[in-house]
Amino acid sequence: MLDAQNPQAMIAGMAAAARRAAHQLARLSTDQRRTALLRAEEAIRAAEADILAANAADLARAEAAGLSGAMLDRLRLDEQRIAGMAAGVATVATLPDPVGQVIDTVVRPNGLELTRVRVPIGVIGIIFESRPNVTADAAALCVMAGNAAILRGGSEASESNAAIHRAFCAGLSAAGLPTEAVQLVGTTDRAAVGAMLAAQGAIDLVIPRGGKGLVARVQAEARVPVLAHLDGINHVFVHASADAAMAAEIVRNAKMRRTGVCGAMETLLIDADYADPAGLVRSLSDAGCLVRGDDRLRAIMDVTPADDLDWDTEYLDAICSVAIVDGIEGALAHIARHSSGHTDAIVASDTAVADRFLAEVDSAIVLWNASTQFADGGEFGLGAEIGIATGRLHARGPVALEGLTTYKWVGRGTGQVRS
Amino acid sequence: MLDAQNPQAMIAGMAAAARRAAHQLARLSTDQRRTALLRAEEAIRAAEADILAANAADLARAEAAGLSGAMLDRLRLDEQRIAGMAAGVATVATLPDPVGQVIDTVVRPNGLELTRVRVPIGVIGIIFESRPNVTADAAALCVMAGNAAILRGGSEASESNAAIHRAFCAGLSAAGLPTEAVQLVGTTDRAAVGAMLAAQGAIDLVIPRGGKGLVARVQAEARVPVLAHLDGINHVFVHASADAAMAAEIVRNAKMRRTGVCGAMETLLIDADYADPAGLVRSLSDAGCLVRGDDRLRAIMDVTPADDLDWDTEYLDAICSVAIVDGIEGALAHIARHSSGHTDAIVASDTAVADRFLAEVDSAIVLWNASTQFADGGEFGLGAEIGIATGRLHARGPVALEGLTTYKWVGRGTGQVRS
Repeated sequence: MLDAQNPQAMIAGMAAAARRAAHQLARLSTDQRRTALLRAEEAIRAAEADILAANAADLARAEAAGLSGAMLDRLRLDEQRIAGMAAGVATVATLPDPVGQVIDTVVRPNGLELTRVRVPIGVIGIIFESRPNVTADAAALCVMAGNAAILRGGSEASESNAAIHRAFCAGLSAAGLPTEAVQLVGTTDRAAVGAMLAAQGAIDLVIPRGGKGLVARVQAEARVPVLAHLDGINHVFVHASADAAMAAEIVRNAKMRRTGVCGAMETLLIDADYADPAGLVRSLSDAGCLVRGDDRLRAIMDVTPADDLDWDTEYLDAICSVAIVDGIEGALAHIARHSSGHTDAIVASDTAVADRFLAEVDSAIVLWNASTQFADGGEFGLGAEIGIATGRLHARGPVALEGLTTYKWVGRGTGQVRS
Repeated sequence: MLDAQNPQAMIAGMAAAARRAAHQLARLSTDQRRTALLRAEEAIRAAEADILAANAADLARAEAAGLSGAMLDRLRLDEQRIAGMAAGVATVATLPDPVGQVIDTVVRPNGLELTRVRVPIGVIGIIFESRPNVTADAAALCVMAGNAAILRGGSEASESNAAIHRAFCAGLSAAGLPTEAVQLVGTTDRAAVGAMLAAQGAIDLVIPRGGKGLVARVQAEARVPVLAHLDGINHVFVHASADAAMAAEIVRNAKMRRTGVCGAMETLLIDADYADPAGLVRSLSDAGCLVRGDDRLRAIMDVTPADDLDWDTEYLDAICSVAIVDGIEGALAHIARHSSGHTDAIVASDTAVADRFLAEVDSAIVLWNASTQFADGGEFGLGAEIGIATGRLHARGPVALEGLTTYKWVGRGTGQVRS
């Protein structure tokens, strides 16, 4: 198409259509938005054959291009995954609607009543990689929060994304919603991502979903606000007062339950006064984890030496760096220096020490006596998540519907003028 | 100084010191932060002679440079203005403390308790122009919300700002706070603003306070988040159902109470079915306002013709553009096209029409039967304001202490691991 020659113009046109759709979405009732998602769910289920055929074409192309097995697995859809994707859309329709919620109300001495009301953000750009289910997940969350979405998926999943997008839009249409509420950017034009990131005022927020390379590019280039996390360099600090069995179980779970998730522990900090550091570390190595220890740990037991880079490395693998630190002070100092601000946890039975950790660690999520692997919107009771944010503004940690809204001030008077 | 040769290094050094101070501030109790502000208040009062001498030097320089009377007035301090500035700092100390406030708490089925707690943002950059009182105002709000501030004022007020800053820091010191909590960037290096705007990750938020040129530069260049408004192109729509006396009073107040404030009405929209448009417009012109009308108004009465630019112009003067529109639909369409998203108001006695206006106008502040000049943190009961934001994320409308905080998730468990 002609527009693809000019990505700025293409994105500007899509964003303008999205803005018009967003104004329509913002006026819909909760039930209208819920109904639209249920129609989208049905349409996705009905389009199963279409989606599978598109996915087979993507897979054939990816195999021919020599993509790795892990990438092929992320790309692959089957009946079960499509059903799961449709069910996910329906789940979003059951979540409490943040739009229209009153945050607070004050009546001023002059009688002016001021209310802060949650409203949709407007136009959200989602830039994602191989998993095609993000097309449906992100669209559902954006639409439920009253936002229009501009989706840009990975080229390897282009046919799958297009098929899912067609189905989702058929659902929107069936419910009487404008299909411009969810638009998919073609992947033939690689400059489209740059145009999205530069669209100040036209796209209100960009959310990257994918690997570190994608997130880093988005954060470096974006002129629009970004909600994301780059790294999950998460710590578990086991204090001297920790229950040994609890510590071993949390540490093993935080690292080994799934090593490739952003909430996985990457560094274990053990209090120098902890009774059995070697036993704790063995609970990791016995579970198949490679331990890279600092000199103080290596004075106690024989493990691979950690180097300076280890403390800033997100392994996303069965590898853990371990350091012995001097009490809560040592842990706080290490975390302040190396944490990526995602999720950090303490295991302790000393409440005062735990409270200090929770107060002073400056991460989006701080946990006491619980595994870092809980860092997930579903586990936090949000019902879903569009992502986890480690920035400091607007929304932090797992972000779901509320994080996709903002507020406005609504004032109701009886003729008040300012003196 | 050497650093001034390298503004990036200078700002990086200041931001690192600010980050350390912010970590200390975040751990202080409400009373400790309040006490610090009260010490700063006393120190500003005690430094009156020093501040007046510095201001006299700035004024002499400004007069020699031929600055306008209005700019000299903004720059000028006297005993009363210094007392007002000190009192403003003390007022901030009386405001409810947002830090540590619990936003919400949920106990998950597995017993994990998750709480969202308000925490300071961290390091805030304030870039401002001639009014030296911003030095104290901004510092007080930042410190009360637990943030470190990096202030960069206008060169014409450099000695005044430095004197106020010295006094403020003396107050911080007297209360045992680090003086790095409030740092002032020298104005000799014009590249410092650029370095602040580029300091991603080191400065968490920049707030420009000043004219449109400053705000536009900050918004165009910033790689860090910005809280600001560029324009206040505010509308009052007088619906056919409006009470005529109320409409005249609100319109006159919205335009003429103070014409130079960002909450002033710039465009009046009159419903084609309103009984006496000419009478309403005369209430403006009789108060000394120049009216620039569209063709429909000029078919009724003789006023200066408006041209296409008028609808997008923030006059900040006794000038008002006036259009006749077809009911609520016409008003909504005009506002959607021309509003700057700051403050828009309707005057109507028809509740359904008013509700529709309040729901569909997508501005930070929407008002029913009240003057747009209420757009102010003090009038909103916030006790103060660091600025008014027309962006769509984090905080909108008047921003005071709460807008200078963010939140983190605090999870308390009893050994929970994820299955």
